[in-house]
Amino acid sequence: MAAMGALLKFGALLLAAVAACVAWEDGDVWDYDGHKLKDSDFLALWPLPQKVQSSAVSFQLSASRFQFTHAEGSSAGSDCSILQNAFRRYFDYIFGFTKKDRDQRRRNAAGSEVLELQVAITSPDAECDGFPSLTSDESYELSVDQPSAVLKAPKVWGALRGLETFSQLVYEDAYDVIAMTNVLNFSVFPDFPRFAHRGVLLDSSRHYLPLKVILANLEAMAMNKYNVFHWHISDDQSFPYVSRMFPDLSQKGSYHPYTHVYTPADVKMVIEFARMRGIRVIAEFDTPGHTQSWGFGQKDLLTPCYTGSSPSGTYGPVNPILNTTYDFMAGFFKEISTVFPDAYVHLGGDEVDFSCWKSNPDIQKFMDQQGFGKDYSKLESFYIQRLLDIVSSTDKGYMVWQEVFDNGVKLKMDTLIHVWKGNEAQYQAEMARVTGAGYRTLLSTPWYLNRISYGQDWRDAYKADPCNFTGTDAQKKLVIGGEACLWGEYVDASNLTPRLWPRASAVAERLWSDQGVRDISDAYVRLVQHRCRMVERGIPAEPLFTGYCRHEYSGV
Amino acid sequence: MAAMGALLKFGALLLAAVAACVAWEDGDVWDYDGHKLKDSDFLALWPLPQKVQSSAVSFQLSASRFQFTHAEGSSAGSDCSILQNAFRRYFDYIFGFTKKDRDQRRRNAAGSEVLELQVAITSPDAECDGFPSLTSDESYELSVDQPSAVLKAPKVWGALRGLETFSQLVYEDAYDVIAMTNVLNFSVFPDFPRFAHRGVLLDSSRHYLPLKVILANLEAMAMNKYNVFHWHISDDQSFPYVSRMFPDLSQKGSYHPYTHVYTPADVKMVIEFARMRGIRVIAEFDTPGHTQSWGFGQKDLLTPCYTGSSPSGTYGPVNPILNTTYDFMAGFFKEISTVFPDAYVHLGGDEVDFSCWKSNPDIQKFMDQQGFGKDYSKLESFYIQRLLDIVSSTDKGYMVWQEVFDNGVKLKMDTLIHVWKGNEAQYQAEMARVTGAGYRTLLSTPWYLNRISYGQDWRDAYKADPCNFTGTDAQKKLVIGGEACLWGEYVDASNLTPRLWPRASAVAERLWSDQGVRDISDAYVRLVQHRCRMVERGIPAEPLFTGYCRHEYSGV
Repeated sequence: MAAMGALLKFGALLLAAVAACVAWEDGDVWDYDGHKLKDSDFLALWPLPQKVQSSAVSFQLSASRFQFTHAEGSSAGSDCSILQNAFRRYFDYIFGFTKKDRDQRRRNAAGSEVLELQVAITSPDAECDGFPSLTSDESYELSVDQPSAVLKAPKVWGALRGLETFSQLVYEDAYDVIAMTNVLNFSVFPDFPRFAHRGVLLDSSRHYLPLKVILANLEAMAMNKYNVFHWHISDDQSFPYVSRMFPDLSQKGSYHPYTHVYTPADVKMVIEFARMRGIRVIAEFDTPGHTQSWGFGQKDLLTPCYTGSSPSGTYGPVNPILNTTYDFMAGFFKEISTVFPDAYVHLGGDEVDFSCWKSNPDIQKFMDQQGFGKDYSKLESFYIQRLLDIVSSTDKGYMVWQEVFDNGVKLKMDTLIHVWKGNEAQYQAEMARVTGAGYRTLLSTPWYLNRISYGQDWRDAYKADPCNFTGTDAQKKLVIGGEACLWGEYVDASNLTPRLWPRASAVAERLWSDQGVRDISDAYVRLVQHRCRMVERGIPAEPLFTGYCRHEYSGV
Repeated sequence: MAAMGALLKFGALLLAAVAACVAWEDGDVWDYDGHKLKDSDFLALWPLPQKVQSSAVSFQLSASRFQFTHAEGSSAGSDCSILQNAFRRYFDYIFGFTKKDRDQRRRNAAGSEVLELQVAITSPDAECDGFPSLTSDESYELSVDQPSAVLKAPKVWGALRGLETFSQLVYEDAYDVIAMTNVLNFSVFPDFPRFAHRGVLLDSSRHYLPLKVILANLEAMAMNKYNVFHWHISDDQSFPYVSRMFPDLSQKGSYHPYTHVYTPADVKMVIEFARMRGIRVIAEFDTPGHTQSWGFGQKDLLTPCYTGSSPSGTYGPVNPILNTTYDFMAGFFKEISTVFPDAYVHLGGDEVDFSCWKSNPDIQKFMDQQGFGKDYSKLESFYIQRLLDIVSSTDKGYMVWQEVFDNGVKLKMDTLIHVWKGNEAQYQAEMARVTGAGYRTLLSTPWYLNRISYGQDWRDAYKADPCNFTGTDAQKKLVIGGEACLWGEYVDASNLTPRLWPRASAVAERLWSDQGVRDISDAYVRLVQHRCRMVERGIPAEPLFTGYCRHEYSGV
């Protein structure tokens, strides 16, 4: 133990030459294929910024001296809770793993230490108290010099992204065998996202997800510059959302009315935790299909199915022919519009099974009256159109799964069409059709991360590109991004996080970085390190392949 | 909070009628296919004992009154650390989740409470201080009555299995909405394993596995009546085993010489932790292939590969033509024979790549001298035969991968041949060949659990049977069991446990229960509950499908 104490003295705050940014290696480093790695490989930035410049200079940081500060003239100050909260979070990420190292000595000349990161919010309204949105400005510039690094961003949302990048510049240097400390490469970059909508879908209906799982994944999302949490909160299996207006929905439709629900306070916490990280929370209440669990707490909401001329006792999709259905939806989505601040709500609309509707004589009569013939997609459209009117009246925009578009429902031009079906050729054709019709769209088909296979399947996710379809530039501009989806049939608190990460990181880079960032070998090298960084920060992201992290995951 | 306090009063120690063993449901319960479930479905025993009798009587247990005791005449007493340790563990499993429930009240008549489990070891030597072995007696009988339940077993190994079964009889009853407590069904059964060798392979070379991960999985193994931990401790990627005699092997061959190694104390702890659970630790030191990591710490051990007439700087399998190789192996396996108490050591012998041997002129010369021609499998056999002689001289038996048998190496008749290759037809043919030659064998091919696919792949693992091959009864008797293998390329501490469990539970039942236990629907119902039981006990086993546990996994 005495030896360790002595060694720690050298562990102060190192400032190494860039050749040493290789961390735990001396001299040159080679990748698995025998290529000498570039210094920039070791920056391990993820997702890769639009532009990086780094010079052959490194700096040191000291936990005892380094500070985040509000730059003079910044429109945000210490009353900006988003930034203050982020300063604390990133200080912990940067110095948390060497907390025992409080030595005040400095190994290099005084000139090479970064003493502060000045954060300047450059537009008059920093949006400290706002919510992120589809049009939020997430751009930032970062320059690192001594004694001050500077992060400039028009809004706090860009500052959050820049803080993540800044924290990714820090690594533990191996000046000698033991001395590990925090070193920063000199770097400048203007950075911004390629797509405005970069989401992760979690499903809290097939399995209930404890709040801490959701929060942990919001943390991981911020580390990957995701900005949308698509909360698929209800489905056939359970209805965990506690509605103030219709409490029976969760009381009777959740797996358990106390232990497997999200209370209003829980939902608020998720939204605020996400806001602090520049992440929107878009709730999905999928109808008219995927609603078995709604039926327990709301009488007459679902269609009674028939066997021959009598009810079978089972239920189908939402009953679209009753006025009470629309009264309920009006009340329910009015509540949702106030609970979830985001400008969009996801209305689902996927996979409606017509067999129950077909069996029901009242539905058949209604079909005849409306002149729908035997085309049940017209009935579906009838329902959806009334639902869209209801939601529009709450001043919300909406997202829908692609079937709603496919079925020819009349949609407002600001509707977001969520593409999820088919093989590569099919989803590309769909993207072309949707944008050809002038709608904005986002892609999920290649990013159904619940689907697993043996080996490095992150590569396929990485290769997919939402703009790979035949269309005009104007059409391509209608692509707002995409979402990684982790449907819940086979995941819960026990395995969700390692199944999602770092596979969702592959999608994150595709949605943030320039379209030209596609080198899978370079991505591998960076992602291995990014994955270790997530592990160090407490996220049990699974390994890409053989190897190790200096700090292995310590949970079980 | 006051309300909760009041409710807990009812939470004492319930004794419900068997109709209520359904726990959180009233009345009858139906499975997914519409069949009414039998009461015994709710015993959720896993793996299913050879024989179960249960009557329509339930008992209650009280944390404040229940005790494990040593029966009069038992050959084990309170100085038997294996049993004392197990009593503590199972007391915790049974009562740990209702610890707040200390109410002394009893809801039912005095007659229905089980006050003790008397454990009787019936043979003169209980083996309290021994190690489990291939021939250990793991049989037991359990009868539950009031006021005493009785567990009889010839040896402590059977008592351990019986304690697990006893703990699985306990469930939380729903006497009314809130009152949950521990109830036990009246049951008697003589039980014993179908196969003597029921193993799990973990690979600590592709990724280092922290000690706590190994220990957690030993816990889970005991919950599934596994009795062999096959520790694939070294491979190409790293050599984490700290050898006393050859410390450079891990000093230079591990991922990190301090943080990514198993010290002698670590190894001892694993062996003792396993012994306490009736689990053997069989170490595998795979040679002559899969040995790249050995080369860093042991000069001249590996074969230098050549490009044309000069060494290429890379190395191949162990060099079989040098006397120093065999001197090293003699010293190394002498140490291994003392460190690992089990009577068997696994010597590997799989996947030897001949290309480096072919390139090396010294090897070619040796081949000529020996008259091996161009048949490099003869060289491999030459090496293996000398290695087997070395290991035999340490009084150990050995297990080898099937290639050693396939290549015609002369093997002692007590060698265990480990089948791992091919498709179903191929491994069945191999089992027939191996047993036809009179060797004992164990199966792993269908149980490579590192291979994953979307959905309920535990079903395939469950359906496979090691005795499904064409052969005589005498041949079938040579099948000693099998192992679930979780190779480490894509798993480490972050994802290992949920990837292994409950998929390895499927294999566990195949290896313990009667050959006729094959009903996949019944298995599903029991396994869902068994998985929840593992989750309650702190093992983050992944879900089989949608649904929930009353106690969800609380880690992240």
